Amino acid sequence: MTLLVATTNPGKLREIEAILADMPIRLLTLRDLPAVEEPEETGTTFAENARLKARYYAQATGLLTAADDSGLEIDALDNAPGVHSARWHGTDYAFKFEKIHELLRERGLATSHARFVCSVALAQQAAIVFEAEGIVSGEIAAEPRGGNGFGYDPLFFYRPFNCTLAELDQERKSSMSHRGKAFRALRDYLHAIRTPQSLP
Amino acid sequence: MTLLVATTNPGKLREIEAILADMPIRLLTLRDLPAVEEPEETGTTFAENARLKARYYAQATGLLTAADDSGLEIDALDNAPGVHSARWHGTDYAFKFEKIHELLRERGLATSHARFVCSVALAQQAAIVFEAEGIVSGEIAAEPRGGNGFGYDPLFFYRPFNCTLAELDQERKSSMSHRGKAFRALRDYLHAIRTPQSLP
Repeated sequence: MTLLVATTNPGKLREIEAILADMPIRLLTLRDLPAVEEPEETGTTFAENARLKARYYAQATGLLTAADDSGLEIDALDNAPGVHSARWHGTDYAFKFEKIHELLRERGLATSHARFVCSVALAQQAAIVFEAEGIVSGEIAAEPRGGNGFGYDPLFFYRPFNCTLAELDQERKSSMSHRGKAFRALRDYLHAIRTPQSLP
Repeated sequence: MTLLVATTNPGKLREIEAILADMPIRLLTLRDLPAVEEPEETGTTFAENARLKARYYAQATGLLTAADDSGLEIDALDNAPGVHSARWHGTDYAFKFEKIHELLRERGLATSHARFVCSVALAQQAAIVFEAEGIVSGEIAAEPRGGNGFGYDPLFFYRPFNCTLAELDQERKSSMSHRGKAFRALRDYLHAIRTPQSLP
């Protein structure tokens, strides 16, 4: 089985490769297909963008394609940054963290409930054959902490582990992360379609 | 551990009770608390409504509370019925099924990719401590089939099993359904907080 994982983000790819490592799958990424142009992510939800990307790359390449869309939703900021997480107030995460704290302070708050969401969709040509969403619930930390992970991880406090996601090693983070949950569900589906009696 | 499952729908409750059956949990439902009034479901997403209901009932009762919100999204109908699934074109499902086919025909379509989504949130007072979303991908059937399940199940064709969700017995449906996936994730979380070394 050959699977195209439609991402170029090296942090994401490390997580995904580790989860799919025990599957007999030949994994291709967008780095293997440099000539394929990126689609516009016009969806208003993570799930819509994941489906849109999966369909687009599956049709452009003919390959079974998994795409994900993910981001941070902060309750007190009306679920911002949401689907715009990557570009919300630029790409400098130190600045983005300051912006979050500033907007919370304007609302008289020191923290807020927040969640990371990862939607994954699997497409065969134009058909979506599998979808999953992984969520992890947490809080905005008073200050960024930790040097692992990427993106908003240092600002995401996970109470059960009493630390931010950036303070976890990759294996421990993947065991509870939004992306870990979504891609383990995908792995289980891919496993099941190879042994149909155990579907799904 | 006592858990309030904030639902009155008997079909939902049967699915949820079966999933949580092996947990040492005392399960209460809204039928046990008839004096508590219902909140308005003002969220624009399943996840928002699940959090809103979980927080509301947890604060009204003081109990650890799980709430879910779920429904059907049809791609070709711009994800309708969506969060309005229960009340979309009334409560007579034979009529609702006809309406779906009519709207598809108006678009020159016989079917459409669709998904069932179930968001679940767990609240302790005002704090959301866990969230999950279960999704199952399928297609709108040419005609309703099967007498099991409830709601839109007879119109939801699931290709891996080559039948609609209403043609499955409860155990088999729960093994792949949106609600099964979401509540098994909740069960794993509840199990983990009783044995913290295995969190989450």
